[in-house]
Amino acid sequence: MTTQQLVDQIRSKKSFLCIGLDVDLDKIPEHLLEEEDPVFAFNKAIIDATHHLAVAYKPNTAFYEAYGIKGWQALRKTIDYLNQNHPEIFTIADAKRGDIGNTSGMYAKAFLEDLAFDSVTVAPYMGKDSVEPFLAYEDKHTILLALTSNEGAFDFQTQKVDEEELYKKVLKVSKTWKNGQNLMYVVGATKTEFLAEIRRIIPESFLLVPGVGAQGGRLEEVCRYGMNRNVGLLINSSRGIIYASQEKDFARAAAEKAEELQQQMSKLL
Amino acid sequence: MTTQQLVDQIRSKKSFLCIGLDVDLDKIPEHLLEEEDPVFAFNKAIIDATHHLAVAYKPNTAFYEAYGIKGWQALRKTIDYLNQNHPEIFTIADAKRGDIGNTSGMYAKAFLEDLAFDSVTVAPYMGKDSVEPFLAYEDKHTILLALTSNEGAFDFQTQKVDEEELYKKVLKVSKTWKNGQNLMYVVGATKTEFLAEIRRIIPESFLLVPGVGAQGGRLEEVCRYGMNRNVGLLINSSRGIIYASQEKDFARAAAEKAEELQQQMSKLL
Repeated sequence: MTTQQLVDQIRSKKSFLCIGLDVDLDKIPEHLLEEEDPVFAFNKAIIDATHHLAVAYKPNTAFYEAYGIKGWQALRKTIDYLNQNHPEIFTIADAKRGDIGNTSGMYAKAFLEDLAFDSVTVAPYMGKDSVEPFLAYEDKHTILLALTSNEGAFDFQTQKVDEEELYKKVLKVSKTWKNGQNLMYVVGATKTEFLAEIRRIIPESFLLVPGVGAQGGRLEEVCRYGMNRNVGLLINSSRGIIYASQEKDFARAAAEKAEELQQQMSKLL
Repeated sequence: MTTQQLVDQIRSKKSFLCIGLDVDLDKIPEHLLEEEDPVFAFNKAIIDATHHLAVAYKPNTAFYEAYGIKGWQALRKTIDYLNQNHPEIFTIADAKRGDIGNTSGMYAKAFLEDLAFDSVTVAPYMGKDSVEPFLAYEDKHTILLALTSNEGAFDFQTQKVDEEELYKKVLKVSKTWKNGQNLMYVVGATKTEFLAEIRRIIPESFLLVPGVGAQGGRLEEVCRYGMNRNVGLLINSSRGIIYASQEKDFARAAAEKAEELQQQMSKLL
């Protein structure tokens, strides 16, 4: 998917909502556990109820790997379902991978080619040759961790390197990599005070912003400092939407929560 | 596995060799492609031929994910085969994971509990709460990326933070985390000049050292600067051993290469 197609979808749905499909069998409605594939059954119901409100879905691979081979089957069914029924929707494999060059190439093949996600999240610690194999895919996107939403972000990401924070160094250096135009960045919504400065470094790039809702970030503030002429934001909500109810009405409850956010977004566009 | 059990194994085998099981179907002997599970068939043959020479095996998950569900099945069969037949061998899931706290907990469960690896490699960029869920497992080990063997290591890892390189900050800060005694570190053999300084910061920790052989690192130099009273080194070789021959004699050829390294190691112990 091209960036323009993503922007067009945002304009037409009046939404820049990404729904995180972080499926925990301990948290989904009990009646789904009788299904042959409870994880996929849950995802399908959530997607069916919310696809008109969201522009992106983001399964975090940790939740699927935790269920072993069954988890990977559920992940494949989920991405196939999205690609077949909602090809206009932007898909994100939240995998946070990264390895030496030829090995990163294997991860890129797994997520961008075989599973056919539109994008994958990647960790920057190993530098240029660990990221460029992902960037080589045309019309696919590499979402680099810059400033994450967790407490541990202050351990290294905000430490000063050459008089500026490491995450800024990551933004500046990564821009220069081959096919750097295929980069997006993860910036946590819990760090809105950093957004204005981030926009000075990467005015055009899309930001994937987790942490609105469950983690305490605020939507309006994120938009004030983070939005650009192409919107440039994907706001992710996971638990706040998908676990809105643990009863049989879970999909309807998820849609209500998604609509609340979409309504707020439509006013901010 | 406790660190002492690993040290005992090293002393008894006179080896600190780790064999990287990075299986690429384009590189394995052609006759194996007829097997039902070529990846596992390859691994089993390599393990059968080399288990007396190596103290650790390290499948890199990228190579398994690249084959989708079949790849994950091969990974499970490989770790099960090792745990059932060679429980004394130290197993490493080279996964380079890392995410916010509760999500890292899912990865830890996947690799340390369900697949039952003795250890997993983890990326430090997201800080303390992204690593501690792995450290919580007793008698399991978290191998944190410190200074990697690739060119991209110079992009961020060797940049100065508070007048010392980022990788040193990672070593110092991570030592203070809860259950920090369960940490080991990745230090590339291509960076031997850094080893003496690394040992001043973490004198006791085990180092996993990739890059001997194919990537150009030198064994003797690594030992001179990196060895401690408990040996404290696991030297990884992947391609140099497992692809020593692409003919029917591949397992014997791999054993020969492994024995060459083991013999050199026995003299350095």
